[in-house]
Amino acid sequence: MQHSITFTKPDSPTPIVVQVPTNTLLADAAYLAGIDIGQPCGGQGRCGRCAVEITEGSVRRRSTLRLSEADIAQGYALACQTVVEGDVAIYVPPQEKVERRLTSDRVVAEVTVPEGYEYLSDQTVRRIHLELTPPSMDDQTDDWSRLQRAFRLGHRFENVTCSLRLLQKMGDVLREGDWNVTAVVDIKNVIESYETDQSIRMIALQPGLVDEYSPLWGTAIDIGTTTVTVWLVDLVSGQVRAQVAEYNGQIARGEDVISRIIYASKEGGAQELRQRVLDTINSLLDTACKRVKAKPEEVLKATISGNSTMIHLLLGIPAGSIRLSPFVTTVNLPPVMTAREVGLNMHPEASVDCLPGVASYVGADITAGVLSAGVDAAEEVTLFLDVGTNGETVLGNRDWLVACACSAGPAFEGAGVVNGMRATQGAIEEVWINSGSLEPTYRVIGGGRPKGICGSGLIALLSEAFLTGILDKAGNVNLMASSSRVREGAHGGEYVVAWGAESESGEDIVISRVDVDNLLRAKAAIYAGFTVLADTVGIPLESVSKVLVGGSFGKYINVEKAVQIGLLPDMPWEQFDFLGNTSVRGAYYALLDWRKREQVTDIAKRMTYIELSADNSFYEAFTSALFLPHTDMNKFPSVAEALEGKSTHVDK
Amino acid sequence: MQHSITFTKPDSPTPIVVQVPTNTLLADAAYLAGIDIGQPCGGQGRCGRCAVEITEGSVRRRSTLRLSEADIAQGYALACQTVVEGDVAIYVPPQEKVERRLTSDRVVAEVTVPEGYEYLSDQTVRRIHLELTPPSMDDQTDDWSRLQRAFRLGHRFENVTCSLRLLQKMGDVLREGDWNVTAVVDIKNVIESYETDQSIRMIALQPGLVDEYSPLWGTAIDIGTTTVTVWLVDLVSGQVRAQVAEYNGQIARGEDVISRIIYASKEGGAQELRQRVLDTINSLLDTACKRVKAKPEEVLKATISGNSTMIHLLLGIPAGSIRLSPFVTTVNLPPVMTAREVGLNMHPEASVDCLPGVASYVGADITAGVLSAGVDAAEEVTLFLDVGTNGETVLGNRDWLVACACSAGPAFEGAGVVNGMRATQGAIEEVWINSGSLEPTYRVIGGGRPKGICGSGLIALLSEAFLTGILDKAGNVNLMASSSRVREGAHGGEYVVAWGAESESGEDIVISRVDVDNLLRAKAAIYAGFTVLADTVGIPLESVSKVLVGGSFGKYINVEKAVQIGLLPDMPWEQFDFLGNTSVRGAYYALLDWRKREQVTDIAKRMTYIELSADNSFYEAFTSALFLPHTDMNKFPSVAEALEGKSTHVDK
Repeated sequence: MQHSITFTKPDSPTPIVVQVPTNTLLADAAYLAGIDIGQPCGGQGRCGRCAVEITEGSVRRRSTLRLSEADIAQGYALACQTVVEGDVAIYVPPQEKVERRLTSDRVVAEVTVPEGYEYLSDQTVRRIHLELTPPSMDDQTDDWSRLQRAFRLGHRFENVTCSLRLLQKMGDVLREGDWNVTAVVDIKNVIESYETDQSIRMIALQPGLVDEYSPLWGTAIDIGTTTVTVWLVDLVSGQVRAQVAEYNGQIARGEDVISRIIYASKEGGAQELRQRVLDTINSLLDTACKRVKAKPEEVLKATISGNSTMIHLLLGIPAGSIRLSPFVTTVNLPPVMTAREVGLNMHPEASVDCLPGVASYVGADITAGVLSAGVDAAEEVTLFLDVGTNGETVLGNRDWLVACACSAGPAFEGAGVVNGMRATQGAIEEVWINSGSLEPTYRVIGGGRPKGICGSGLIALLSEAFLTGILDKAGNVNLMASSSRVREGAHGGEYVVAWGAESESGEDIVISRVDVDNLLRAKAAIYAGFTVLADTVGIPLESVSKVLVGGSFGKYINVEKAVQIGLLPDMPWEQFDFLGNTSVRGAYYALLDWRKREQVTDIAKRMTYIELSADNSFYEAFTSALFLPHTDMNKFPSVAEALEGKSTHVDK
Repeated sequence: MQHSITFTKPDSPTPIVVQVPTNTLLADAAYLAGIDIGQPCGGQGRCGRCAVEITEGSVRRRSTLRLSEADIAQGYALACQTVVEGDVAIYVPPQEKVERRLTSDRVVAEVTVPEGYEYLSDQTVRRIHLELTPPSMDDQTDDWSRLQRAFRLGHRFENVTCSLRLLQKMGDVLREGDWNVTAVVDIKNVIESYETDQSIRMIALQPGLVDEYSPLWGTAIDIGTTTVTVWLVDLVSGQVRAQVAEYNGQIARGEDVISRIIYASKEGGAQELRQRVLDTINSLLDTACKRVKAKPEEVLKATISGNSTMIHLLLGIPAGSIRLSPFVTTVNLPPVMTAREVGLNMHPEASVDCLPGVASYVGADITAGVLSAGVDAAEEVTLFLDVGTNGETVLGNRDWLVACACSAGPAFEGAGVVNGMRATQGAIEEVWINSGSLEPTYRVIGGGRPKGICGSGLIALLSEAFLTGILDKAGNVNLMASSSRVREGAHGGEYVVAWGAESESGEDIVISRVDVDNLLRAKAAIYAGFTVLADTVGIPLESVSKVLVGGSFGKYINVEKAVQIGLLPDMPWEQFDFLGNTSVRGAYYALLDWRKREQVTDIAKRMTYIELSADNSFYEAFTSALFLPHTDMNKFPSVAEALEGKSTHVDK
């Protein structure tokens, strides 16, 4: 039976009506109506952000998790958990807007071209000039053989292949250029196995002889769960000519990889997620190309990194097995594909190279990160951390590499924290608390009124609250503290960071006991990850000579505070390096230089993946780390010292 | 300015109206209206078959060739040559229907599997059983690496590749089959260069272990200018399990390759022709599959032959350069493609292998024909003729091969002959003339009233008319002959084969002086072709030990009569062999056996193409052959003998 569903929205004066059968999900009906209701948890009914108001008619709520009795009484329902049973009128509240403070928009550091980059010896994509003898009655060789002959005689390229699409254009291009043409070829196989599997793929063919030193465009792409980064690179000079980044359009359908996989398992979900990330990438490519006055179809090579789930979703490969024991991917080493196959808006024949991953939760973002951080070439033992939703950790040097992943969850990206938010406009990104008055000082991104607290702010807040005694070792709020900011709230004890009078929403911005628990779990998972990894290979943490932190989130962490809450190991500051987006940088290196590209495969092959979920010692280490900074204070001597000399802590 | 064009048709009660701008071709307006007006000459205004009647309004005729003054006065116009200048009403006369008498429908000879065919040593497409160890927490290898490992351990296949589409299904198939799967692979490269370029392409993957001896479907396809033939083959047994044929859907847009190329050069023309031949092939595949209760998507390999124009049009590669000096193709050796790329309705990853051609007018149909006729393996000098529109000729043996093509034109297929028609229902296919009464006896395909005369009927008619003195050596009609059937007609002298009283249309079926000229030109071109070819290599025709005639038309030729008109050389009958469709048979051999497939490439490389249009001696030989049977009677001793003993010619 069909029902009329009428949607009203604050930003649309006229209601939108769609017809759907009984038992249609409200979220699906909204989608049909062209209304985008965000589902950050992937439609699992966990986050409560897809709540809508039923103003008329009858629905059935499968789950009301995250809705209070009052909410339900008022007509609220979760769009992802509620089905229609008759004609219904629905009010869709304003949807959370993703505002930007992406790396690229804040500080675009100029990227240095790797020392010694030589297009003619390092790059596999080459521009080749060909001057052909025109056909005549004495030489009726077919166009393609004629072109192959020119490759052979002029460049010793024996086995050039091309696609049907290129064959379809070939005759016209040759004649338009009056038998002078510029080909773009991918000579990867020639370089790798000279004289044997010498297969060269022709990507493009243009009439006339194009200036040899004019830019030849390639792109390095990092598909993060949260942010997609695109670097547009001139393959001739090696220079990064544009850097752009944007939230991954999949965010509206899940904030972490698990939610995305769940959403993808729904009918049409995988296709929608694939399209969403393609839209994000294609729009970024467009923006980047505009900056350098190029056209997307002039981009001839893409090297892509990203975690295994992101790569599977991009390629339309089901990701379900990643989530379920025994946690395997369908493919860790995807073959090189064309932009047409993948759906990227570049030259349709462009080579698209997705870098190899190692396991379900140690993907190409980590192998690329290891490459760009130089872990695999280090003489001394190095710890590489990607502090993010997945919390991947690599330990090793030029002789060995081990890796693990721990599901830290998106707490540091603001999820699961009542006043948590992403590092965008209005986020409190740094907090100091006066140890006497317990009054806070904070810094807001963009400088206006605060809306919430982002990851770096949460770390600072935890650390400050702990050092000033607002929080105890176990994360309990000390309700005895002499400040009106410390109080009993709806979710247990809480500390008010900003009063309603000063906040954007007019409501108090707080951190509660529940928030602290979520943050402790996230940091404990990361800490347990690298300590178990070190234990597994019998390397004491003290012998680690460098801690390299990747991920753009890592860039904003205050080391001292991260150590104080027990997120990072207690080591001298100079042993830490914050590298920013190591994933896109690794992709950039692999894009430029075939040796670097081979090195990534080598890293993926050499890296031993340690599955933590199969390991009891992880659970023990995790439990021990669920404290500020840790049950074993001996592991954090500098924190012990700070606590003892608490009075010397000077407020800024 | 827009005009209303109103079409009425005999089979449609309501008129169809379309809006088009000034100067739109009537043919294009009709196309827009969904009305199919046949253009056998490709829209050149030469055949006159697209005539329509203008019943109202104003048009401009660019050309009125083929229309009489009376026709024009009555409102007739050629749809391909007439543009609208205002609102117009048009009557579209009934269009000529193509009725069938295709080889496959008349006699489907059972095809013998080549002696010694062994699936496991000859076939490149193989079915492979793989039993995988399921993943576990101790073995988290990704699906694709797991599958590759099984290929390596179970079959020593080192470098298996697969497409993105297959990767997208892989995880589900592996799990559905509970880690037992059947793969279909193309191991061509393994066979050809063992241990070096060992690249194996996985075509398909099915859950479970499929019976090893159940059919594995492949298809051999011959794309003729007139007829498309499809053989459905079980690659395991090698047996041809279904043979189907159908007129090439492109016929409505040109009867010969030149007309097709011209039509393809119009806007949208190439795309339309491509779709038309794809429709023909796909419908044939469907029919063939139904006969054996298979599905088209179970067909995993196609080997295609056809002349160079047909291959270019199939692949959407512009064919214009084939027609213009210096007559070159874009590609003689197309790469192996997939069914998806080509647009064939088979398994989308199926290998589609278009056999190699030699030149613009010596295509894969000829190399395949040479293979199946065994010319390249013959000890003695052999002449291979493909008697058809293009008149390709090959001369050679196992040591050398030369080839030429002469544009014989479609006269033997009934075009350019007033009462000519294709070899379908109602065609006179055999004629005998009483040398005393000059009364004919004829045989009609299907046995009903005659509608016209097809190729074999025309050859017989020419020969009989010549031997009975109705035609002289130069093809003039002897108006002094004592028969009312010999008379002066609209196109000069003519002979009435069937009176209106006995014909289908009620009108006399005649052969006129003009028809004879067209037929003489066609046979002279073919004869001149092979004689010049023999001269070029210095081989007297007498030393040719075998004449092999390919093409399904060849199957119906009466050798004696073909010699009598000077189409075939005057040699003992036992030296002739009529082989039928050698092109599809060659494709079938190449489909089954990789050695045969290599042999076709070898034939294409070894064959020297002689360009006749650059050769004065061709013109001389052609001119000398424009007689019955030839200016030089010494070349036709058996005909001279027959003429001398004319009275001994017994009527049947």
